[in-house]
Amino acid sequence: MMSRFALLFRRSLSGYDCDRVGLQVRKVRCTSQTRHLSQQRAGEECCGTDDSSPATRKDSVATRGVNLSHPTFVVWGANTGVGKTLLSAGLLGSILSSRKARSRDVMYLKPVQTGYPADSDARFVTREVSNILRSSPHGIQNKVYICNHTLKASPAVHWAVKSKEETGMKDLGSYEELILEGSQRPNFYMNGHDNLEADSQGRSTESFSSALASLPSQLTCKTMLSWFDPVSPHYAAQTERTLVDDSYVIHSIQSALESHNIGYINDGSGCEAGEESRAEKWVLIETAGGVASPGPSGTLQCDLYRPLRLPAVLMGDGHLGGISSTISAYESLHSRGYDVGAVVLSDYGLDNEKPLLKYLQGRVPVFVLPPVPDISKGLSDWFDESQVCFSQIRYALEESHLRRIQRLHEMPRKAEQILWWPFTQHTMVPTGEITLIDSRCGENFSVFKSTDGDRLESQFDACASWWTQGPDMHLQPELAREAAYAAGRYGHVMFPENVHEPALRCAELLLEGVGQGWARRVFFSDTGSAAIEIALKMAFRKFVKDHASFFSADTSWKSVESQPSLKVLALSGSYHGDTLGAMEAQAPNPYTGFLQQPWYSGRGLFLDSPKVYMQMGQWQLDIPDSLLKDNAVKVKHADTVFDSRDDVFSATRDQTNLAETYRAYVDNQLSVHKAKEVKNVIAALIIEPVIHGAGGMEMVDPLFQRVLVSVCRNRNVPVIFDEIFAGCWRFGVQSTSELLNCYPDIACYAKLLTGGTVPLAVTLATEDVFESFKGLSKLDALLHGHSYTAHAMGCATAVAALQYFKDPSKNTNLLPSGRLLELWEPELVAAISCHPSVKRVTTIGTLFACELQDKDSGYASTSTKGLIQSLRANGIFARPLGNVVYFLCGPLTAPASCKILLQVLESHLSREMEQIKN
Amino acid sequence: MMSRFALLFRRSLSGYDCDRVGLQVRKVRCTSQTRHLSQQRAGEECCGTDDSSPATRKDSVATRGVNLSHPTFVVWGANTGVGKTLLSAGLLGSILSSRKARSRDVMYLKPVQTGYPADSDARFVTREVSNILRSSPHGIQNKVYICNHTLKASPAVHWAVKSKEETGMKDLGSYEELILEGSQRPNFYMNGHDNLEADSQGRSTESFSSALASLPSQLTCKTMLSWFDPVSPHYAAQTERTLVDDSYVIHSIQSALESHNIGYINDGSGCEAGEESRAEKWVLIETAGGVASPGPSGTLQCDLYRPLRLPAVLMGDGHLGGISSTISAYESLHSRGYDVGAVVLSDYGLDNEKPLLKYLQGRVPVFVLPPVPDISKGLSDWFDESQVCFSQIRYALEESHLRRIQRLHEMPRKAEQILWWPFTQHTMVPTGEITLIDSRCGENFSVFKSTDGDRLESQFDACASWWTQGPDMHLQPELAREAAYAAGRYGHVMFPENVHEPALRCAELLLEGVGQGWARRVFFSDTGSAAIEIALKMAFRKFVKDHASFFSADTSWKSVESQPSLKVLALSGSYHGDTLGAMEAQAPNPYTGFLQQPWYSGRGLFLDSPKVYMQMGQWQLDIPDSLLKDNAVKVKHADTVFDSRDDVFSATRDQTNLAETYRAYVDNQLSVHKAKEVKNVIAALIIEPVIHGAGGMEMVDPLFQRVLVSVCRNRNVPVIFDEIFAGCWRFGVQSTSELLNCYPDIACYAKLLTGGTVPLAVTLATEDVFESFKGLSKLDALLHGHSYTAHAMGCATAVAALQYFKDPSKNTNLLPSGRLLELWEPELVAAISCHPSVKRVTTIGTLFACELQDKDSGYASTSTKGLIQSLRANGIFARPLGNVVYFLCGPLTAPASCKILLQVLESHLSREMEQIKN
Repeated sequence: MMSRFALLFRRSLSGYDCDRVGLQVRKVRCTSQTRHLSQQRAGEECCGTDDSSPATRKDSVATRGVNLSHPTFVVWGANTGVGKTLLSAGLLGSILSSRKARSRDVMYLKPVQTGYPADSDARFVTREVSNILRSSPHGIQNKVYICNHTLKASPAVHWAVKSKEETGMKDLGSYEELILEGSQRPNFYMNGHDNLEADSQGRSTESFSSALASLPSQLTCKTMLSWFDPVSPHYAAQTERTLVDDSYVIHSIQSALESHNIGYINDGSGCEAGEESRAEKWVLIETAGGVASPGPSGTLQCDLYRPLRLPAVLMGDGHLGGISSTISAYESLHSRGYDVGAVVLSDYGLDNEKPLLKYLQGRVPVFVLPPVPDISKGLSDWFDESQVCFSQIRYALEESHLRRIQRLHEMPRKAEQILWWPFTQHTMVPTGEITLIDSRCGENFSVFKSTDGDRLESQFDACASWWTQGPDMHLQPELAREAAYAAGRYGHVMFPENVHEPALRCAELLLEGVGQGWARRVFFSDTGSAAIEIALKMAFRKFVKDHASFFSADTSWKSVESQPSLKVLALSGSYHGDTLGAMEAQAPNPYTGFLQQPWYSGRGLFLDSPKVYMQMGQWQLDIPDSLLKDNAVKVKHADTVFDSRDDVFSATRDQTNLAETYRAYVDNQLSVHKAKEVKNVIAALIIEPVIHGAGGMEMVDPLFQRVLVSVCRNRNVPVIFDEIFAGCWRFGVQSTSELLNCYPDIACYAKLLTGGTVPLAVTLATEDVFESFKGLSKLDALLHGHSYTAHAMGCATAVAALQYFKDPSKNTNLLPSGRLLELWEPELVAAISCHPSVKRVTTIGTLFACELQDKDSGYASTSTKGLIQSLRANGIFARPLGNVVYFLCGPLTAPASCKILLQVLESHLSREMEQIKN
Repeated sequence: MMSRFALLFRRSLSGYDCDRVGLQVRKVRCTSQTRHLSQQRAGEECCGTDDSSPATRKDSVATRGVNLSHPTFVVWGANTGVGKTLLSAGLLGSILSSRKARSRDVMYLKPVQTGYPADSDARFVTREVSNILRSSPHGIQNKVYICNHTLKASPAVHWAVKSKEETGMKDLGSYEELILEGSQRPNFYMNGHDNLEADSQGRSTESFSSALASLPSQLTCKTMLSWFDPVSPHYAAQTERTLVDDSYVIHSIQSALESHNIGYINDGSGCEAGEESRAEKWVLIETAGGVASPGPSGTLQCDLYRPLRLPAVLMGDGHLGGISSTISAYESLHSRGYDVGAVVLSDYGLDNEKPLLKYLQGRVPVFVLPPVPDISKGLSDWFDESQVCFSQIRYALEESHLRRIQRLHEMPRKAEQILWWPFTQHTMVPTGEITLIDSRCGENFSVFKSTDGDRLESQFDACASWWTQGPDMHLQPELAREAAYAAGRYGHVMFPENVHEPALRCAELLLEGVGQGWARRVFFSDTGSAAIEIALKMAFRKFVKDHASFFSADTSWKSVESQPSLKVLALSGSYHGDTLGAMEAQAPNPYTGFLQQPWYSGRGLFLDSPKVYMQMGQWQLDIPDSLLKDNAVKVKHADTVFDSRDDVFSATRDQTNLAETYRAYVDNQLSVHKAKEVKNVIAALIIEPVIHGAGGMEMVDPLFQRVLVSVCRNRNVPVIFDEIFAGCWRFGVQSTSELLNCYPDIACYAKLLTGGTVPLAVTLATEDVFESFKGLSKLDALLHGHSYTAHAMGCATAVAALQYFKDPSKNTNLLPSGRLLELWEPELVAAISCHPSVKRVTTIGTLFACELQDKDSGYASTSTKGLIQSLRANGIFARPLGNVVYFLCGPLTAPASCKILLQVLESHLSREMEQIKN
């Protein structure tokens, strides 16, 4: 059991014991090459930033990802002082001393260290792992390089270590290295007990083993950021006057992981590119304090590290009270979407593992280490005793890593076999082009890619998850918490004749918000389409009550034949949902064909409408010929071009000839319809205010919609605003009533209503509409309702989201006017609209849309394919609507993120143009 | 500052210091009356049980509630040893020493104490509160009785205290009492600094003050259950071989609260009934250890106390690491639906309150106490120093209590003003009859009542929250956890061409479960009604592909006129949802009238169907005349009566004449339709298998439905099972395919799918159905989809629920056959069916339904009103379907609970009959 050791200190720090018995201190070459390397490594994690938070990091369009080719786990603690660092050291020791004499390249990261240099978990790990390896019963089978870097440090640390004055977080450049030289121990390979891989005949292949054994292993320990004061990081950062942005911490870790992934083992003789690829990699990242201890900026660590969503090992607490703190810590991790690979705790004779096992049964394995002795008396006996347990933990973590990878690989194939996607021609989805979404954090998806090694890549969700999404990474955990609270408090409770807090509060907020000025009643349902059908039923009843003379007094179902047929007034190109009733209220379109919806008949008078868009940098109006042909009044050119989008919405336009033209057109259409279709009555107006969403993100002239509402109001026809897409800040305002400058009688909301968590829909109505359902019989009531009506989780998340979006202390996009600031940089938008391949551009609120020139325009178009692929390759997840490419962000998205989206689009268009030219 | 004190020990326990300086020990009357009283009190909390868990407590039909007339808070700790008891003592001291010299009746409960008698938090509170009162700067303004009871104790405690051998938890009967006699301190009332209430002219009314001050106050401390070993309660209970059921703990607390509520202050001179009502009441309940520390049975305390959902005060941790443990503990409470009224922590110079304030901003106030000194040196200085802080905490808690009560009182009124309930005639909901649901725990609602003082009452949710609900109190927190995990990991991510774990896993489980044997594809949507419309679109497309010759080759929407009209084959009385498409597939009924759904035309051939029910204790068949009249084959009487419900579902019935009769009838109907309606084709069969739900909980003869399926299959007409109500264990089986013994081509699931948390719906289909949407164009795809398609929270809760219901280790209702055991006791069911006012009874799986005799039967009937009120008064929340009263429980509900439901119903019916007779 003889081993030779070599030890080198580049810079020795206080507290590191370099006079160990049995160690031979040896000077190794300190070439400029290796020095350069270490400096480079130390530098690369921190480059691009000075001491404080770089403002450019505020954007959330992130493209860096996480490598999945080897196990990477984050060590969390149920509390401070429960033994996270012991767990790290034991685990790393177990990995490096495994009897499989492989070359290993292992990294230990301590992103945040306080109490430095007196305390250094990385130094502790460096020392203890070397002790473990020395005392390993198998001996050291191959040379092991152990190095310990300390990167950025606070001024107080610089002063303590170098007596040097600094401001902000500066490179400390501390580096220490230790080389353990292994023995070949041929006896070991000769006896029958080795676990080495044998060849297919089961013979142990000595030459192979020797070759492996001759390759070095490496442990790289890195402390990313250190402070002097032995307190919570946020407190140290504050007292030592050093601000560190969260995204800086995340990007530093990502850089370190990347450099570890492409790095080679620094064996002092330079790069051996052919061999390092065979080194098995493993990474442990150790947090500071407990799971919800604040990081340097004050953000709780469980929130701070969330963008990486690395799997966790939780060091629990074996003391009295430790069951509770371990379970609560687990719940804080779990509710943020972390996967916990193992829970470990030291045994203090209380059997704490039993309740934990019961609680975690079937979900997470629990491991018990022997009680930790007085650390000052040395830990080698304890590590010896714990060796089997550490092997088991390592095995469990590696297993869970492998299971995860295996599942990630099989998922796209299984999805292809058993899922049936909406709006998707399955024959047109090539294998390998299915997007596997591992998680989302704020506005970003984390997407699995296996083309170039297994990775998770971050993609900005530019579909706002199909028009529902609102949270950034601060709101997401808040919504998760509120959802859990509602589930814990209510689950679901039935609604008719009942009341519960989330439903009532949600109704109150809606009436104070989107319904302010007109709505008095809130009817809940589950999905936008149902909300529309409910709205139609409300409008029709109101119409029938208001125009009783049109109808037969017998309103039972048997009398249907004798009644006039009720129709809606609607605009061609508007879309109100997929269920039959909602479809009947829209003009014929690809979704309503016989093969799609054989029961569709189109129960409406559908008018063409004037559209507004930007072309060649100019906002302009496009009036369909049908609208002009019967009109004597001439439209002035000045009324069809606008200096800005605000001018489009200006109330002064009501005084123009154009308004008169619109009014005459609508009146005329209604009169013609009335004369022609004597058995049909127009009983409701339904519009998508401002933007026709599914119809291609087209902006309808708000003046035209205002005129429509006014004409219908004069005729006592109820007005429905379908704000399912538009409402709750989608267009930069709570409700498009603010943009159109008029109110509906009935309006529908869904999608963003819950901030983008669960389906919930509401139909708001005036008291007059509500009154028309009062009567003496239950059969007069609105007999429509879904089982999950006003479900608590939907209402609770809606309450949280509605309040958050509206709170200027939380939503930094909110202007004092109560609207969102302009998210899309006007110069970039104008530049894109000037591009030859762009037909038109529309922006409003969180929406940017751009129609490409295309011979086969429309929903079936595939012309955007190249652009979409290019966007995805650049970290932007977009999905086109035919030949329209759009970006949707959330009400909280930073303008800087929106800028990046536009820049990527602009640069693709320019590149494409270059290619066409050449 | 002179006060007189009186002290009495009934039984003095070790550790209680009775030789305080300045105390005058005085013997007070120890009448048999007071002794009796204390015994009675000690006894009444524990009566009705012996030492172990009473089996009858397994049912969850609970009627006891929680009194809200005064503040009642539970003291939780972020960990053990953070100072919960100090907080309790300080708070109680503050309440009793308030300068408002009111009579107060305050209770301190310690439900679970370990380490007894050496440790007794109640004793500590008794002693420290008396110290606080003595040293109060205002002096003691009225006589204060302080007493300390210890009720049940383990054998080890009995041995330690009384050297007596016992088995199980037995009454210890320990009682100590202390009387503090107040001084009037007239000077105090004379100077200008008092805070006493003044009369309307602002004059301090001395006589009023004196009158109040002359009334005694009381502090009652109670330890409910005590163990000897100073370890976690579950561990002590185990080693001391004493099992205590969770429901026993809850019922003990409820009893103590009730007795406190009706109790009077024991001033030694007997009851003074007129005065005790003026005593202000306050209750603190102190938990053991941390929030998730196990209780005696091993259930985590945060789960154990959940049925009461009392508001919380969380004692946080001011030490290093305390931010994390406080936040995690808060999250464990919050995610179980507790409201936290205040977070308190001791200050150890780390400013832990700052991150807590940031985290809890706008939600919970945070209070900081001075650092706790060495307790052995006495706490009087510390309590002095903390006095202001305790007043603030008390004030905050009282405020939060008042806000809660105020909100509870205003909610029904606001609900009436702004909500619009589904299926509800608002004019028929009298003020005061709105049910305010404060929370649910497992199968029980907690309902606010203010008729006889403010109370929360427990009501069994016999509507299974309108047919969606499945969890018991163990599954509910698990579903909340999974919902939070999914929200934290995904929020929502868009679905087309994408895959994520919860959606894929949910699809896999559905195909292995309800879809086993036939389904291959899963299409997600949000609500049952949409799932039905999707199913119809699928079926029609399949039919069109299979019968291409019937149709024009041009299938664009412009060609609709030239196509035959597609119709469904369906049964009268079946109901498939509220959106137009789903409604079109059902026969005319009250929901489809012109006033309700003006666009309804009824696109189907609707057949009458034979029904099965129990009448006079006998299962029998009711065949409509329309079905018999054209048939030559005679139906035998033996084929229309059954020995048991199982016989109804027997496959042997396929061989009877009846099967032949059914087949001939269906075939004939289809042929007649074909001949008559040449422009219409029957393109799908849609049925609600086994039970017509909304149609009145009628059981359709399964043989008839099997024949229908077989006839349609022969004609190549796709078959849809609407299992939205029926699926996922509602009828005791995963899928009714098991009951009908045949498979559909398409089936819909929703409601119980997520265990009753959030809306989620799926349409399952065979691969053949899926294939019929393949093509070269996107326009061939199924162009239907909702934004929240396959939303992560819905899928994740569905995965958890589906696995839980199917797991025999968790679902004790599951038989080895894979079906649920019989939940409704057959004898009781038979008895109810024999009742003269009962027309018919139906039971299957979790459903019991009973149609009452009624002249005006149908949906508009109000005949059940009295019965419903009687059920609600008996703790059962039911809502009728016209003249049908039904009970729905969950797949996990204990048969004992179902028995209580039936017993309450039976006894109401009998009582009613008695009244009619008299």
